[in-house]
Amino acid sequence: MSVLKTEVRPGGYYDSIVLMQLQAALADLPGVEDAGAVMATPENRALLEASGLMSDVAVEAGPADLLVVVRAETEDAATDALSRVDGLLVRGGTGGGDDYRPRSLESALKVLPEARWALVSTPGRFAAGVAREALDRGLNLFLYSDNVTVEDEVALKRRAAADGRLVMGPDCGTALIAGVGFGFANRVRRGSIGLVAASGTGLQAISSHVHALGGGVSHAIGTGGRDLAEEVGALTARQGLDLLARDPGTEVIVLVSKPPVPSVARSVLGAARGTGKPVVVHFLGFAPPARRIGSLYFATSLPEAAWMAVDLAKSAGAVVDAEKDPRGEDGGASAGGYLRGLFAGGTLASESLLALKNFLDPLHSNMKGDTIRPLEAVPRSEFHTILDLGADEYTVGRLHPMIDNDMRVRRIAQEAADPEVGLILLDLVLGDGAHPDPAGELAPAIAEARRSRDLEFVVVVVGTDEDPQDLASQVAALEDSGALVFEDLTSALSRVVDRLVEVVPPPLPPVEVELLSAPVVAVNIGLESFSESLADQGAQAVHLDWNPPAGGDDQLMAILERMRR
Amino acid sequence: MSVLKTEVRPGGYYDSIVLMQLQAALADLPGVEDAGAVMATPENRALLEASGLMSDVAVEAGPADLLVVVRAETEDAATDALSRVDGLLVRGGTGGGDDYRPRSLESALKVLPEARWALVSTPGRFAAGVAREALDRGLNLFLYSDNVTVEDEVALKRRAAADGRLVMGPDCGTALIAGVGFGFANRVRRGSIGLVAASGTGLQAISSHVHALGGGVSHAIGTGGRDLAEEVGALTARQGLDLLARDPGTEVIVLVSKPPVPSVARSVLGAARGTGKPVVVHFLGFAPPARRIGSLYFATSLPEAAWMAVDLAKSAGAVVDAEKDPRGEDGGASAGGYLRGLFAGGTLASESLLALKNFLDPLHSNMKGDTIRPLEAVPRSEFHTILDLGADEYTVGRLHPMIDNDMRVRRIAQEAADPEVGLILLDLVLGDGAHPDPAGELAPAIAEARRSRDLEFVVVVVGTDEDPQDLASQVAALEDSGALVFEDLTSALSRVVDRLVEVVPPPLPPVEVELLSAPVVAVNIGLESFSESLADQGAQAVHLDWNPPAGGDDQLMAILERMRR
Repeated sequence: MSVLKTEVRPGGYYDSIVLMQLQAALADLPGVEDAGAVMATPENRALLEASGLMSDVAVEAGPADLLVVVRAETEDAATDALSRVDGLLVRGGTGGGDDYRPRSLESALKVLPEARWALVSTPGRFAAGVAREALDRGLNLFLYSDNVTVEDEVALKRRAAADGRLVMGPDCGTALIAGVGFGFANRVRRGSIGLVAASGTGLQAISSHVHALGGGVSHAIGTGGRDLAEEVGALTARQGLDLLARDPGTEVIVLVSKPPVPSVARSVLGAARGTGKPVVVHFLGFAPPARRIGSLYFATSLPEAAWMAVDLAKSAGAVVDAEKDPRGEDGGASAGGYLRGLFAGGTLASESLLALKNFLDPLHSNMKGDTIRPLEAVPRSEFHTILDLGADEYTVGRLHPMIDNDMRVRRIAQEAADPEVGLILLDLVLGDGAHPDPAGELAPAIAEARRSRDLEFVVVVVGTDEDPQDLASQVAALEDSGALVFEDLTSALSRVVDRLVEVVPPPLPPVEVELLSAPVVAVNIGLESFSESLADQGAQAVHLDWNPPAGGDDQLMAILERMRR
Repeated sequence: MSVLKTEVRPGGYYDSIVLMQLQAALADLPGVEDAGAVMATPENRALLEASGLMSDVAVEAGPADLLVVVRAETEDAATDALSRVDGLLVRGGTGGGDDYRPRSLESALKVLPEARWALVSTPGRFAAGVAREALDRGLNLFLYSDNVTVEDEVALKRRAAADGRLVMGPDCGTALIAGVGFGFANRVRRGSIGLVAASGTGLQAISSHVHALGGGVSHAIGTGGRDLAEEVGALTARQGLDLLARDPGTEVIVLVSKPPVPSVARSVLGAARGTGKPVVVHFLGFAPPARRIGSLYFATSLPEAAWMAVDLAKSAGAVVDAEKDPRGEDGGASAGGYLRGLFAGGTLASESLLALKNFLDPLHSNMKGDTIRPLEAVPRSEFHTILDLGADEYTVGRLHPMIDNDMRVRRIAQEAADPEVGLILLDLVLGDGAHPDPAGELAPAIAEARRSRDLEFVVVVVGTDEDPQDLASQVAALEDSGALVFEDLTSALSRVVDRLVEVVPPPLPPVEVELLSAPVVAVNIGLESFSESLADQGAQAVHLDWNPPAGGDDQLMAILERMRR
């Protein structure tokens, strides 16, 4: 019969590595079957429970308390193991080595005055304070720590941006600057592909695939997973895109993130277009509106993003030239205004809704979707609206809009009368069974709507050269009315997205591009292994022997913080 | 000053074409500015309102009442217009032509006894009854009508399937059988590409694009937009796939639909694999798990689906041979059991969740998503579970699982002890900063878990040949433990989906494939223009001069229906 013994050590700060080492050392002691040394968060207590290491004593502990648990063959073995905890904690905590270790950022910067970077991997509740101090001292940040609040993230990033400095993170696991990996990073060939990633393992997977495909990476800038959230507004991603735009070694850019909300999607893709370089975009789980829109190339998986980037890098010069300011031709097409989609074809309506919901907000429809808003009054459009006018509710005692154009002709006039409308998206489906001359009724309505103002019409025509309506003359009639006509939906949607994604100027002041070419010199605060890996890669780093202010006591820390301000 | 006059005609049945003609005729009368002739549904009343045609009288009318509205320059002109309604209704209603027109299905089948098809486009509330009668008489159905309940759809489809017959619809706008378009259809070259579509304009767009690309269509089977809903279970789609599998003229199949729920996705894709032919799948707005899984090719847009199909058709013979029973190699890998994903990399976890949520239900996770369920207790997995073990809540006072394998080693043992688990999905991320030998700790845990039973492990390794851990030996250690190892996530996920999508046998009894090769002979009930377009295409059709039973009176109809049973 095993014996379980638990010790609770209230409050204070314990280094994660020290705890891992403590747990391993306890488990190795004679007569000990298993051991745990964790902070008493709900998740950690549940994990102890799953390993049969949870006791009544542990139930009382709170998230700031340390739990040390041993399960041993005998009472004596358990008692003996716990008696060694103090000794093991001290041994683990020394960090080993004979080097001089600065204990403050100030003294670290005396050792390494040319440092440009601070790597911060302290526990989350201390990280914002450490990061503020590093910004005070003019450093750029690689902020590995997680459990940092979004308010702290916004404050740190705004402040850094105002000074032309970079905050990668919080919760940024990886970056590659001038060939040197920060945090977790794979060793990859240097080359002409730059990355901006709000996804840590996304950055690692893509850069590894690029390497395997024979390509190489110029720099890979991590942003932290929350950078593209609405509150943060992609501040680091936009700085990163701007840096890679100005970096002469980068010819192709890859942007990877979870799908952002529409306003951020527009601004970050606008910043991507503003780079003047081809950008491969991979938004995880995002159904791309097209495979390519101007200089933006949409990938659907991590390996595909790498493959596309390597392929583009092979012919980068030519592509860049062809893609510069892809919207220059019809200058000023990107006027504002709401979009109104008036569809006869249900699939075309649905596919348009799915593709455009990532860019339009608020988006209303009579079709359902997770971010789609219902129409408050059926006939009146609101904000951006996409309607399936062939849906059941519109065809009671009424012919389908593929046969009867009356409803759409009236609707075009109604939408055109709304001064907030900037673009009307229509379909026109030819073939047997459909109206014998739909363009003959819709084109005059379009021409009439455009008579008073410069309203853009984008029309997708579905049909073949053998259809009874004569495809060519239907297209010609629509074009004569001033509509932009496309013969597939993807091209029509590309045009719409092209119009929505306006080039966004980079944040000011710019981060000096020399930051990317200068040798990496860094102060490391937190996980010692990150210092070692910088040294292994030939970068200069000094490890700060960091301890939390006030020994990690929250109340005392708050008082110190107030005094500091 | 205009005068608005409204007449309400309660109850009864009015043909949609008659109403369109009535409205146009009224609007053409001298002194009339605008007119409306619509059933008084909320949507139609709102549309009248938007056109300035709504009056107080109309507010009182219900959905079964006809509203006739004129806006005229003078009182006299309005009165005169309304006085002509009866005459116009009669004129419109005759349908013109001198041919004999059968007034019942029985007499129609005397005219055309070899008819195999009924095209039904009556108003929705009458359609199920008409469809039942057509099935009684041994016909296959093209059911254009919308506003049919899902209960009626299920009943019709189950009954037809039990007799080896096909119900395309309800709300099926289009089909192409042996080169003849039903309903709305584009004229396209015949060829080797067959379509099964729950999306009407999807079918039209893809077949038109196939034609434009120089390819051709064998048959295109519409299913109605709701066929892949959970209640209907893709009955028509599965019959359609089976028909095209047995059709010697079809070499490549395209399947297009809105994304189905996971159980239907598995069964319809299982049926697709069962065809033994390459199938291009386009689920609208669906992020495909891979570009290709065995014989399934995933497209991300309508034009891309067409392009992929044409490309596959060019080399169809070779592809078909290579793809037959693509899972034969490791026979029996598709055993059941829940999936547990235990990820160190957040992006890999997130990308897996997004790709697999379309196939797994219920799916639990500590990550959020619209169909994702939270975990009830943090550490215990439930049903299918995918965990990001590097998330904030797991790293308080604890090293990241890329550095410390302890949590995952424990978790592997815990999941393996659950007899309902069939597959464990892991990642292993190499590089600077990560654990120096993760496979050295995870591989023994995998081997131990597999000692007692045949538990499948799928591992994705992210790393390069220059990483300090030595990629090749990490992969070898994992493979020695019995895991299937992949060096990119897409391949790993393809393996998982491959295992989930088991070949599904076709519904029995089969629909006779001769239905596709026989000349199209049909009875048309509803929209006369569909008869005309069949005739234009050289098919034989008889138009039934249909009127609703009991003149469309709901109460009388219900009594008749009860008497009929």
